[in-house]
Amino acid sequence: MGTVTTTRLEAFSDGVLAIAITLLVIEIRPPELHQGERLAHALWAQWPSYAAYLVSFLTIGVIWLNHHRIFTQVGRVDGPLLVLNLHLLLWTGLIPFPTAVVAEHLRDGGEAARTAAALYSGVLLATGLAFGALFAWVTHTDRLLHRLPPPGVVRAARLRFMVGLVVYAAALALSWASAPLALALCGLMALYYAFDQASVPVGMDPDAQQPTRRSA
Amino acid sequence: MGTVTTTRLEAFSDGVLAIAITLLVIEIRPPELHQGERLAHALWAQWPSYAAYLVSFLTIGVIWLNHHRIFTQVGRVDGPLLVLNLHLLLWTGLIPFPTAVVAEHLRDGGEAARTAAALYSGVLLATGLAFGALFAWVTHTDRLLHRLPPPGVVRAARLRFMVGLVVYAAALALSWASAPLALALCGLMALYYAFDQASVPVGMDPDAQQPTRRSA
Amino acid sequence: MGTVTTTRLEAFSDGVLAIAITLLVIEIRPPELHQGERLAHALWAQWPSYAAYLVSFLTIGVIWLNHHRIFTQVGRVDGPLLVLNLHLLLWTGLIPFPTAVVAEHLRDGGEAARTAAALYSGVLLATGLAFGALFAWVTHTDRLLHRLPPPGVVRAARLRFMVGLVVYAAALALSWASAPLALALCGLMALYYAFDQASVPVGMDPDAQQPTRRSA
Amino acid sequence: MGTVTTTRLEAFSDGVLAIAITLLVIEIRPPELHQGERLAHALWAQWPSYAAYLVSFLTIGVIWLNHHRIFTQVGRVDGPLLVLNLHLLLWTGLIPFPTAVVAEHLRDGGEAARTAAALYSGVLLATGLAFGALFAWVTHTDRLLHRLPPPGVVRAARLRFMVGLVVYAAALALSWASAPLALALCGLMALYYAFDQASVPVGMDPDAQQPTRRSA
Repeated sequence: MGTVTTTRLEAFSDGVLAIAITLLVIEIRPPELHQGERLAHALWAQWPSYAAYLVSFLTIGVIWLNHHRIFTQVGRVDGPLLVLNLHLLLWTGLIPFPTAVVAEHLRDGGEAARTAAALYSGVLLATGLAFGALFAWVTHTDRLLHRLPPPGVVRAARLRFMVGLVVYAAALALSWASAPLALALCGLMALYYAFDQASVPVGMDPDAQQPTRRSA
Repeated sequence: MGTVTTTRLEAFSDGVLAIAITLLVIEIRPPELHQGERLAHALWAQWPSYAAYLVSFLTIGVIWLNHHRIFTQVGRVDGPLLVLNLHLLLWTGLIPFPTAVVAEHLRDGGEAARTAAALYSGVLLATGLAFGALFAWVTHTDRLLHRLPPPGVVRAARLRFMVGLVVYAAALALSWASAPLALALCGLMALYYAFDQASVPVGMDPDAQQPTRRSA
Repeated sequence: MGTVTTTRLEAFSDGVLAIAITLLVIEIRPPELHQGERLAHALWAQWPSYAAYLVSFLTIGVIWLNHHRIFTQVGRVDGPLLVLNLHLLLWTGLIPFPTAVVAEHLRDGGEAARTAAALYSGVLLATGLAFGALFAWVTHTDRLLHRLPPPGVVRAARLRFMVGLVVYAAALALSWASAPLALALCGLMALYYAFDQASVPVGMDPDAQQPTRRSA
Repeated sequence: MGTVTTTRLEAFSDGVLAIAITLLVIEIRPPELHQGERLAHALWAQWPSYAAYLVSFLTIGVIWLNHHRIFTQVGRVDGPLLVLNLHLLLWTGLIPFPTAVVAEHLRDGGEAARTAAALYSGVLLATGLAFGALFAWVTHTDRLLHRLPPPGVVRAARLRFMVGLVVYAAALALSWASAPLALALCGLMALYYAFDQASVPVGMDPDAQQPTRRSA
């Protein structure tokens, strides 16, 4: 098999992720001014748009980072991996939608805010599940990887995925209590992943980097 | 000739496909709430948007997959191939439009729903025809391919294209009877292609993968 | 100098062109139905949107093709080339705007249709001038090219550019007489370029293609 | 570490920058005509949209250029660089938003115009700070660069960054006096950078260009 090369799978995924992350901005609309309203006030009033942009940007950015790290280890692409990757992109590409819903309805309070936060956390949870499935498939044998990392390392990485899923599920549950808290939890998760990614070498790729490798 | 390299043709096509698939999300708008309406209800009510996103995402994803598989076999690009490829991208790049029409009018029922479904199936049929023409051109001699696969393999792949065309034509006809059924048929077709692609090695590329090949 | 590699200049330009060509679709909106209006009728009524999509898609597609062909010959990137290329992308990236204006106002007739057609032709003329300037700079010495093609070939290619400029200027003038004719002329020009590109090997690149060249 | 390759970091950044620069156009909307209004007049009336498109296009174009030049020198990617790069993309990806605010409110005059200009200058200032932080990190040791350039060259490049920050801060302050002047200052800054980039070889990369280097 192996007819879809890793590099082109990465390139297509990179494209979708770069576009999804950049499309987030078009959900932030210039405010319409009511009679006598100050623009500065109207701009402040749509703070949920900025907060949602920030959290979603970080989240997609971290997905890109994780995706890249995993695929530097992948040597072969099989059918299920293709479908699982498309499935991940399907959820990630959807993120601008709940982002827009949160931006529009968070300040409404009540049912609207709670539902918006639940939708947002729910889509992130689904994205996390899709990523976890891809990761589980990639690491379930040494058929796809250049070399299966030590079991302890795989276990640690799986645990890290689990933490994300639990946190997103908690944010989903928290939505019914407090929409802003649920979103803040999603934001903290993205921040944690971003700094974790930046500071800790991911267990899976100790010395496997080939200088001649290219991934567009 | 051969002045447009395969890799850059692939890169441009990948770009257009990645953008088209990601643009689908901006057709899903946050619902506007009427007086006293619950957001959860309003979100449910726009289920045709989600269904259309899903079907179109799968369809463009499968087009990307097929495109990539065919071009791993292509060694030379000639003039007609350039035009045929641009023609395919023209129809694929249009898909977000019928997707938005379906999302907006499927629930209207009656003429509007039927017309929306017919437009949707019609654009997919045209996309399929454009892809079939490209495929027929690529395989009509061994001038463009690294090596012409056995006739039986080409015949099987052409048959597979034919099945798609027949199904999309059937969906177009079915639109006048039932718009949701027509869309469901398009969705089944995309699912079939996705899993077929994922499980069956495409006949055209048995062992031709060159490890040094790159396609951005 | 030469610190911006040709490949990355090409990659960035490819990205902008692929996005501009794909963004065209979001200017085609699902029609809003008036009381008792049939969707089929409303879809037909916005034929200027489809015509404008077609012409602009072909035009940007041909720009991409020409851009690629020229840059397969370019071996060095200097400062003016960077600015001239950015200038070309600035006008090409603008094309979705006049496309939307034409789509919205062509059927209005009168001053609105004429102005829309004039804006459209004017932006294509400016794009052509920007491309001509880039081409003139690239071919004015052999400093940037792998090898300066024979003067006759360069002259022929410059002539070809001139024809385009004259035709777009004619379309601009024609706008005041008939908006649809002006657009049809722009469409014919794009069709001519597309088939010309596809059938005639561009004079500049006879055998210069290096198999190891890559351009993402 | 070094598990994220320079090329893929560049590719992702290129994608985001190319998309952000191309998305600018969708903020220029076809004007809605009031009763009896001429389209030509309505098109002229939205000149702030064109001015804002021009300035933002140049600004993002120059960011791309600078980004590329710096990364041709970078040999290793570490954690802080990843976060700092994502931070730069976060601000750059936001630019279409203040661009749209300026396009919509510059002609309002008064508080709205001043606030719009302040928002615009402020986002450019934040982008400049983000870029400056990335640059400072890259040049603070020779760990990430192929070779640390002479201190004088680094100092000159840092000074250049400083000039930008001071000018954007001045534009921010000027917003309260005159919104159009503040924007003009931002435009001049982008023009200066564009021609400066084009004419002066950046000090950091004298002869370091490797012909085999690729960056998609």
